[in-house]
Amino acid sequence: HISNLPKTFRKFSSTPLKCDAFSPLDTFPQRHNGSSDAEIKTMLDTIGVKDVEELIYKTIPANIRSTQALALEEGLTESELLNQLKDIASKNKVYKSYIGMGYTNTIVPSVILRNILESPGWYTQYTPYQPEISQGRLESLLNFQTMVTDLTSMDIANASLLDEGTAAAEAMLISFSAGKQKRNAFFVDEKCHPQTIACLQTRAEGFGINVIIGDVLKYDFENKHQNDLAGVLIQYPATDGSINDYSDLSAKIHSLGGQVVCATDLMALSLLTPPGEWGADIAVGNSQRFGVPLGYGGPHAAFFACKDQHKRRMPGRLVGVSRDTYGNKAYRLSLQTREQHIRREKATSNICTAQALLANMSAMYAIYHGPEGIIAISKRIHNLTNALAEEIKQMGYSIKNDAFFDTLNVHIENGADDIIRKAAAANINFRKVDNNTVGITLDEAVIKQDVLEIIQIFSKDSTKKSDLQPAKKTAIPQKFIRTSSFLQHQVFNSHHSETKMLRYIYHLQSKDLSLVHSMIPLGSCTMKLNATTEMIPITWPEFANIHPFVPDDQAEGYKMLIKELEKDLAIITGFDGISLQPNSGAQGEYTGLRVIGAYHKSRGDDKRNVCLIPVSAHGTNPASAAMAGMEVVPVKCENNGDLDMKDLEEKAIKYKDNLAAFMVTYPSTFGVFENGVVKACEIIHQNGGQVYMDGANLNAQIGLCTPADIGMDVCHLNLHKTFCIPHGGGGPGVGPIGVKSHLLPFLPGHPVVKTGGDKCIGPVAAAPFGSPVILPISWAYIKMMGSKGLTSATHLALLNANYMAVRLSKHYKILFTNQNGMCAHEFIIDIRPFQKSAGIEAIDIAKRLQDYGFHSPTMSWPVPNTLMIEPTESESKAELDRFCDAMISIREEISSIENGQQPIDNNVLTNSPHTIETLISTTWDKAYSREQAAFPMKFLTTHKFWPSVGRLGKFDIEF
Amino acid sequence: HISNLPKTFRKFSSTPLKCDAFSPLDTFPQRHNGSSDAEIKTMLDTIGVKDVEELIYKTIPANIRSTQALALEEGLTESELLNQLKDIASKNKVYKSYIGMGYTNTIVPSVILRNILESPGWYTQYTPYQPEISQGRLESLLNFQTMVTDLTSMDIANASLLDEGTAAAEAMLISFSAGKQKRNAFFVDEKCHPQTIACLQTRAEGFGINVIIGDVLKYDFENKHQNDLAGVLIQYPATDGSINDYSDLSAKIHSLGGQVVCATDLMALSLLTPPGEWGADIAVGNSQRFGVPLGYGGPHAAFFACKDQHKRRMPGRLVGVSRDTYGNKAYRLSLQTREQHIRREKATSNICTAQALLANMSAMYAIYHGPEGIIAISKRIHNLTNALAEEIKQMGYSIKNDAFFDTLNVHIENGADDIIRKAAAANINFRKVDNNTVGITLDEAVIKQDVLEIIQIFSKDSTKKSDLQPAKKTAIPQKFIRTSSFLQHQVFNSHHSETKMLRYIYHLQSKDLSLVHSMIPLGSCTMKLNATTEMIPITWPEFANIHPFVPDDQAEGYKMLIKELEKDLAIITGFDGISLQPNSGAQGEYTGLRVIGAYHKSRGDDKRNVCLIPVSAHGTNPASAAMAGMEVVPVKCENNGDLDMKDLEEKAIKYKDNLAAFMVTYPSTFGVFENGVVKACEIIHQNGGQVYMDGANLNAQIGLCTPADIGMDVCHLNLHKTFCIPHGGGGPGVGPIGVKSHLLPFLPGHPVVKTGGDKCIGPVAAAPFGSPVILPISWAYIKMMGSKGLTSATHLALLNANYMAVRLSKHYKILFTNQNGMCAHEFIIDIRPFQKSAGIEAIDIAKRLQDYGFHSPTMSWPVPNTLMIEPTESESKAELDRFCDAMISIREEISSIENGQQPIDNNVLTNSPHTIETLISTTWDKAYSREQAAFPMKFLTTHKFWPSVGRLGKFDIEF
Repeated sequence: HISNLPKTFRKFSSTPLKCDAFSPLDTFPQRHNGSSDAEIKTMLDTIGVKDVEELIYKTIPANIRSTQALALEEGLTESELLNQLKDIASKNKVYKSYIGMGYTNTIVPSVILRNILESPGWYTQYTPYQPEISQGRLESLLNFQTMVTDLTSMDIANASLLDEGTAAAEAMLISFSAGKQKRNAFFVDEKCHPQTIACLQTRAEGFGINVIIGDVLKYDFENKHQNDLAGVLIQYPATDGSINDYSDLSAKIHSLGGQVVCATDLMALSLLTPPGEWGADIAVGNSQRFGVPLGYGGPHAAFFACKDQHKRRMPGRLVGVSRDTYGNKAYRLSLQTREQHIRREKATSNICTAQALLANMSAMYAIYHGPEGIIAISKRIHNLTNALAEEIKQMGYSIKNDAFFDTLNVHIENGADDIIRKAAAANINFRKVDNNTVGITLDEAVIKQDVLEIIQIFSKDSTKKSDLQPAKKTAIPQKFIRTSSFLQHQVFNSHHSETKMLRYIYHLQSKDLSLVHSMIPLGSCTMKLNATTEMIPITWPEFANIHPFVPDDQAEGYKMLIKELEKDLAIITGFDGISLQPNSGAQGEYTGLRVIGAYHKSRGDDKRNVCLIPVSAHGTNPASAAMAGMEVVPVKCENNGDLDMKDLEEKAIKYKDNLAAFMVTYPSTFGVFENGVVKACEIIHQNGGQVYMDGANLNAQIGLCTPADIGMDVCHLNLHKTFCIPHGGGGPGVGPIGVKSHLLPFLPGHPVVKTGGDKCIGPVAAAPFGSPVILPISWAYIKMMGSKGLTSATHLALLNANYMAVRLSKHYKILFTNQNGMCAHEFIIDIRPFQKSAGIEAIDIAKRLQDYGFHSPTMSWPVPNTLMIEPTESESKAELDRFCDAMISIREEISSIENGQQPIDNNVLTNSPHTIETLISTTWDKAYSREQAAFPMKFLTTHKFWPSVGRLGKFDIEF
Repeated sequence: HISNLPKTFRKFSSTPLKCDAFSPLDTFPQRHNGSSDAEIKTMLDTIGVKDVEELIYKTIPANIRSTQALALEEGLTESELLNQLKDIASKNKVYKSYIGMGYTNTIVPSVILRNILESPGWYTQYTPYQPEISQGRLESLLNFQTMVTDLTSMDIANASLLDEGTAAAEAMLISFSAGKQKRNAFFVDEKCHPQTIACLQTRAEGFGINVIIGDVLKYDFENKHQNDLAGVLIQYPATDGSINDYSDLSAKIHSLGGQVVCATDLMALSLLTPPGEWGADIAVGNSQRFGVPLGYGGPHAAFFACKDQHKRRMPGRLVGVSRDTYGNKAYRLSLQTREQHIRREKATSNICTAQALLANMSAMYAIYHGPEGIIAISKRIHNLTNALAEEIKQMGYSIKNDAFFDTLNVHIENGADDIIRKAAAANINFRKVDNNTVGITLDEAVIKQDVLEIIQIFSKDSTKKSDLQPAKKTAIPQKFIRTSSFLQHQVFNSHHSETKMLRYIYHLQSKDLSLVHSMIPLGSCTMKLNATTEMIPITWPEFANIHPFVPDDQAEGYKMLIKELEKDLAIITGFDGISLQPNSGAQGEYTGLRVIGAYHKSRGDDKRNVCLIPVSAHGTNPASAAMAGMEVVPVKCENNGDLDMKDLEEKAIKYKDNLAAFMVTYPSTFGVFENGVVKACEIIHQNGGQVYMDGANLNAQIGLCTPADIGMDVCHLNLHKTFCIPHGGGGPGVGPIGVKSHLLPFLPGHPVVKTGGDKCIGPVAAAPFGSPVILPISWAYIKMMGSKGLTSATHLALLNANYMAVRLSKHYKILFTNQNGMCAHEFIIDIRPFQKSAGIEAIDIAKRLQDYGFHSPTMSWPVPNTLMIEPTESESKAELDRFCDAMISIREEISSIENGQQPIDNNVLTNSPHTIETLISTTWDKAYSREQAAFPMKFLTTHKFWPSVGRLGKFDIEF
């Protein structure tokens, strides 16, 4: 044992908050962390270390260990937190916002709000990579896809993207890569939302795409772009509310070999001829107004739909209909040809996180209302807008757009500011388009009285009271009126009473394993507690009902929260500044690399475009680098998983004139604190490069070491891992980046709301602060844990992983530990030997674990045919033991194949998971009993979670 | 078909709210009611009526049908409702209340708040009469019982009562009936809470008990009550905060043959010698401070614990540990010797509804904190109180009680009003005990800063800032200090992290069938939708955090809501006034009869004490009458279920000098609108009696007829049936009464807060307005449905019942319909024939229905061996069909016994319900297949709910 720890060594405390006679007792670390003191003692004994300090000493290299406590305040209690956050929320002003621009008010059906957004049964789910225990959300996401394809009249849609801006950027990239020859020009109609245009421009840079902005209906494509037109983006209805006919345009673009991308609005499409019917190839947009709160900009589910010919280039996740091993219908993720974990080498998309939780809400909204309900809502919005237009015209103003659905651009010669000011005084927001133009977008939540108030603002005679009359005729010209039906599937025509809706939600939920059932020990995913106190504030109206483009003085609560969260994250990581804009870890990577690129460029270092990436890296790393226009050069790893320092140094020197960045995950993707990391950073810096740290494993560092001190220049944080934002069944995520001071000027900006550095790169997300409505979760986590609590969590995350590794090491080979035999917060067990000995692969254990009531660890990543296990600090020793016992029991089952008791191709593992239906069928011809299949351990007789379908094969998708 | 309906006939509308071009669309009736227009048409066709109007014409007697629409406003939309209610809530002022008197602030753990109180998986459950599909809440209620027995050190505890006041009254009644000879005197210490004393006094009157109030420690029991002392009630700690030694007293009372009843506080008992250790026979109290919001008085779970010798007299529900048919441990309700449905004839208790949902919350609170956590909370409360006492004494005031736990009585000569006023200005409430005394009770939510603010109020020098120092010694004298352990069961020592707590809650929930799964067609229980929008406001702090005894100006929102709800209920029932005080239907019955008694008495009609009750009545009716001191005289029924009008008239005339009341359920407990009801009321009135209507079946009347017009004088309403308050797994309930104007002066009052009539009877509940925090549910339901919506719900309730009756009539005999063959909102099917033909009883069908995923209808009530089915308006035709199909399938299964395919004692019904464990056991020796047992219908393969234990017999309780 280590006898003399340095004096500066950070002590572990299981009750980290101070406690005197009067101290409040609803402290949070005791609830967040899983194990009791006695359990911790037992775990330490099992590992063979004296105390937690010794464990840390043996785990984290001395040269990176922090010597000082995190400079954060002491943790708040849960009730203090709720009080403080209520105060902050009350600084936001909930005005009526008619700003539009892709974000509108919506009426969130209470039954959906409470039973999806506020339900841990939905928000603690993981991405549905294990379809047998994810049929509920897979069905729901398929509903989302059906909703999108129906409303857009496209052939196929994915299960959501991060936001409309990046969805449009993805569409641009498909256009870019669609043709046989290289086509570099992409035209963007000036009537697209400004944030969408800005996102496209940002993204275009990395690919060298020439983005041209102009009037799409007047532009001379034939002469200017005979050979190089990749495609066009138009907004339908346009950002000014106008409805334009793009059918001739589409024919023209197609004849030039380009793609037509249409950014559109699902609500409008219930009344308008959908893009798929007039020639668009790709449709994108935001489904927010289908029952998802504004939330100051996000998260919301963007959609992406396209014609069949593009389906294999489609970004993101797609749910398909398949069959399980018994031939029963089953849903699964499919066609993930561009998802990062499939094709690492040629990745040009780093899409990983989606917006599953919000997509589910939007799909449920469509189900609750049905096609007739959606049409009724749309018609009413249009009726109100139309009546408002009539009144405004009668007052002598002109409406710039004759045809409209829900948005008016009102001409007021030099009067926009006045009107905006008058509106603000009445707690109303309009859009200021320019000095002469005010935009007004109505929505589902508007009532007649609201419209009368709007009229009052425009009225020159404030005493005159008007009543609203329906307009004589629709403002949607005949040729745009939709004639095709949509949402005809039974699911959209069944659940219109609340009772039925509630039961449908619970029915789906009952098929999905989530954190309410058992640990989800996914390596690199950090499935920790998403505490209720953290979740409660996000549905408070003061956070939920703020438009992203309101004036700053209406979002002071948000601004305060964002500023404090940035400060706290900077303290935790050691960086000088944070950008909260990126909506996922991968988007954070991309942002970080773009910031590095801008930094080099600012110094005249134009040629620096090589990015060194270890071969062990997460697939998003090379994809992000490619997207940032960098050339990826792989760095080798040693057999023990460590960086090959020699190779690193050689490559760094070789590329020293072009070296832009080195991307490294720390602790490594093999779950080890490598000793060479400081040295690696030095090598890179010596050769003119910047170091980017992938923060996926930050949960192993907090309070014990910091990326900045290690030598990193940039790092992204996964707030949905380390900082408690729930995974939501596959999103939302938040992937902010931290940077050192020299990179601060380059943090991303935004065209509508000022944010970012002085020399900012363009926006990487549609909303200025990414997904603000879920930031209170991370804010609350940090505030309630405080300096010591956060550190204790890291201590326990490391303890739990090492405890499990020791327990399992007697039964499985543990890959990759450090010189002291220690892993970090996760570890890898080797399944490869069983392939030969028993025909068993990682997937068989993953599926068999379902029979034991557990979600599988991360499968075959970063090493094929292994399992990577991450317990997190929130799981108790009892739960860790339950999981280890299950793994040990499975090892015994493998033995029974090895020794011939069970056949190699028809055993309890290869046939797993077992459904109830199979187990109670009259015929049973297995070498094992029904009981062995279902209840291999005692606790299962009372605590069983049942897979709802049998195993799904690998290549059995139907379309 | 009826061709000419009267002009005044109320028309049915499935979309009852007005709809023009601008009308908001989030209207509620479309969500509350279950079926679409097309489905309604099909159901009407099946019944063989032209339209809903014809159905009503044939169902409700002409002489009681309303000719006018309900004089309520048009329904609000869901968003309008939430806005209005938010406005009303904001009129309540959330001060810091240190009033005590059995109600204190508490910190509701967020994980419990959201996942129990706000979760339809818990709040929509029914009372756990079907144990096989209720093991979750049964376990939770057993935890509650264990918590109570442990903390009070009693032998046995029940699963909650309505409130502390009525629990004390029940204890008095046990004392009253405990001895062999009649003992009429019951002594109440003056240091009990005033509302408890008042409740006792009210209750004592009906039984002729002589309640003596005085100083229990000084009273001369030996000389004054040698032979007639039933018992004493003391409060421990007392209402003035003092802790007194009652061990000598207990010995004395026992020697006189009396019982010692101790009203107590669970939090205090974690530090104090529990009543069971110093001689108390019964302990009662309120568990509110264990994690249940104040809610302006309720609902909270009262507890009742006693020594073993009283267990068979114990009121309310008790959960016991038993074994299922396979010998596995299983929980069930047991020992309900006093529950109304067991012993109708001699009932002296009408306890029916409990406070299950709140009891579950309190039990979970104890589980979350564990014994050490509870002790820590108690010590901290005491530390703060003790330090406050020191400061107050240093300022020159005297504390009247030397020994205390959390409550101080401060002496301020003639200064109480001043201090109270000063406190109010600082948003603080103290208790005004008398002109010289202020009471201060601290609680878990108090922080140091709060105590400093209290000190500031008492400080004569407002500039002086004091800091709080821990007192040198405890104010709990050594002899009161608890030495025994408690909450040692594993469940209280396992789930202290939020992850574990969350999983425990979900684990229990997964065993319980509720409205989130399928219809619960319990006759007379009206298991309709409990809409989310109705539920959301009850956990808003402005409703949740108000002490019941705050000054009126702090509860203006509540007052407005109560007034409006009273007005709306009066309109709906036709009555002139409403009392919301009764906490259950049975308590409403009791209240109504007491009001009738007071009315007769006020007119000098002292002898009127006969209550006529049809033999078909709900068991609570005679019990309530007995409790009100009335003599019950049964009235016969005809073979068709109708009242025997001849017998009624004979009895009425026979008892005309003594006739107090006639109690009648309408529509009848047989589910029929009897024609003779108006005549019956006339007969009673002619003979000097008053008519009491049991409102259990009011769901069949609203908008179509009114109790007042029919001729009723009083009626109770079950807000937890007709008015959407969820059943909560066995409570809360709310049972207000409506009365005609001549009875208004007698509506119940309250000793602390003014309410009720000028000549009010005493309180029937501890809190002045019963359970205010759940009243927003009913308020919201009425406001959102509006006049037409409420009427449409009744239409559909009647339609659904008649549709099911017609469908099932081809397979089962339907008992009791009217002359047109129509039932009301429920109907009875006869199971008796199958006893002979197949050995099958109602219970076998009830259990077999579990295999089909349904909760049983009401079993063997009001007719033995029948099933009473009530669908409610919220269930859709699809769900009604699914249930009917299940019943028809079961009928076929019965046929297979009748024709010998299955043996009479070992068939799919008698062996039901089937658990997964049984079905997948290797051995299977039944005459039917496993598949037939588990999946007798196709929909079950995707929508199965599994019983978690096998069938429980009738007499197999362990203790």
